[in-house]
Amino acid sequence: MRIRLAIAYDGAPFAGWQSQAGGNTVQDTVESALARIAQSPVRLHGAGRTDAGVHALAQVAHFDTPEDSRMGLVEWRRALNGILPPTVRVLRAAKAAADFHARFDAKGKVYSYDIWTGGVLPPHLFRRAWHMPQPLDPEALRGTLRMFVGRHDFRPFAANRGAHVADTVRRIKGIRVAHSGQLLRLTFEGDGFLYKMVRMLAGAGVRVAIGRESHAAIREILDGAGKWTHVAPADGLYLVRVRY
Amino acid sequence: MRIRLAIAYDGAPFAGWQSQAGGNTVQDTVESALARIAQSPVRLHGAGRTDAGVHALAQVAHFDTPEDSRMGLVEWRRALNGILPPTVRVLRAAKAAADFHARFDAKGKVYSYDIWTGGVLPPHLFRRAWHMPQPLDPEALRGTLRMFVGRHDFRPFAANRGAHVADTVRRIKGIRVAHSGQLLRLTFEGDGFLYKMVRMLAGAGVRVAIGRESHAAIREILDGAGKWTHVAPADGLYLVRVRY
Repeated sequence: MRIRLAIAYDGAPFAGWQSQAGGNTVQDTVESALARIAQSPVRLHGAGRTDAGVHALAQVAHFDTPEDSRMGLVEWRRALNGILPPTVRVLRAAKAAADFHARFDAKGKVYSYDIWTGGVLPPHLFRRAWHMPQPLDPEALRGTLRMFVGRHDFRPFAANRGAHVADTVRRIKGIRVAHSGQLLRLTFEGDGFLYKMVRMLAGAGVRVAIGRESHAAIREILDGAGKWTHVAPADGLYLVRVRY
Repeated sequence: MRIRLAIAYDGAPFAGWQSQAGGNTVQDTVESALARIAQSPVRLHGAGRTDAGVHALAQVAHFDTPEDSRMGLVEWRRALNGILPPTVRVLRAAKAAADFHARFDAKGKVYSYDIWTGGVLPPHLFRRAWHMPQPLDPEALRGTLRMFVGRHDFRPFAANRGAHVADTVRRIKGIRVAHSGQLLRLTFEGDGFLYKMVRMLAGAGVRVAIGRESHAAIREILDGAGKWTHVAPADGLYLVRVRY
């Protein structure tokens, strides 16, 4: 049976999603829990990588249960949550089609980016928001982010690894900006995002909003003249949802 | 100069507010930062103790600056936040009257208690909410908590240390119950609270709401026949505000 998991994690203690030598990634953590339950190695396929420090409210991943397993979906979820640290939780386990693939079948993703605009970062937002105490012009922020909506070649807004993929054209369906007290939440929805792209777009919006960069300069970079370099910190980024 | 501080902290990494041998309390942490700035020992007086794991959105405390200090309020706040760990933040520093006392002048306190009622505790609420996945009757919860509002002898709802104080009569101005998705937030406002009292009242409300205790039994205990023993975990408790 192929099982599709919705997994939430606090990114702070992990070296990102993707398995790596030395471990301490979310994928390694879940795979080792799966192996302990299955009594044999199990490969987990995530919808996408998240970097060190990046959070997930609902990452999606799939795996195949061992042929002889009689465990049901609820049992898999409970067994996994019984082994996993409380910083990683399986929210849902669902039966998937035999050819479902968490990464290749993903049709879109939603990310949010949290920014704390007050003078002092509340302790409960430490490692969970970008602290940006400089005065920020919300209209300039909205105007800059609006420019990114639609289909664009986002190569200038991808870190090197992502800029080397063959096709760097992505479609952003929408970017919302919401205020709640001194917390500013940017929500990006698109068919896919290049490596570090959300953090570079958030960085561009904020740099214009604090008056350190012009709207026109960002426009030129988006048009292909140059490369953007300011990456907003991982702390504020959340993978909210994967659409299929 | 006497300075009044508003201090927020994440209770998870600390052994409570109150200074103790072995340290690792919030008071010890702030006092050692004060001493480093003042170049001499400084005594910090808090509005009240919070237990290990209990959070504060705005604890209040006062201290006296050294006679020869020329530092202003903003400088004290900045210097403290420069030394303190990010899990403890000075939100505000204000000049207080020479006879102001954070503890003795407190007229009231507001606490909130967060309960996650969903089946799986989201990783971002780990150590920040009580996980109570059993079905919970909101009307029974409200009815039980309503009983506590007003002036009562709360001795049966205080842990031993608190029950030994001379006067165990306290007045609760109000208890609010708010839902946001699967998060339930109880907000207690009163002139003061005995040791572990908020956690015992939250525990009583929840025990009735899950059908493990009757409203009538709680009423009897409040009337002095017996002693309540279920203390809700520290994780969900927040000192929200101190009133003067």
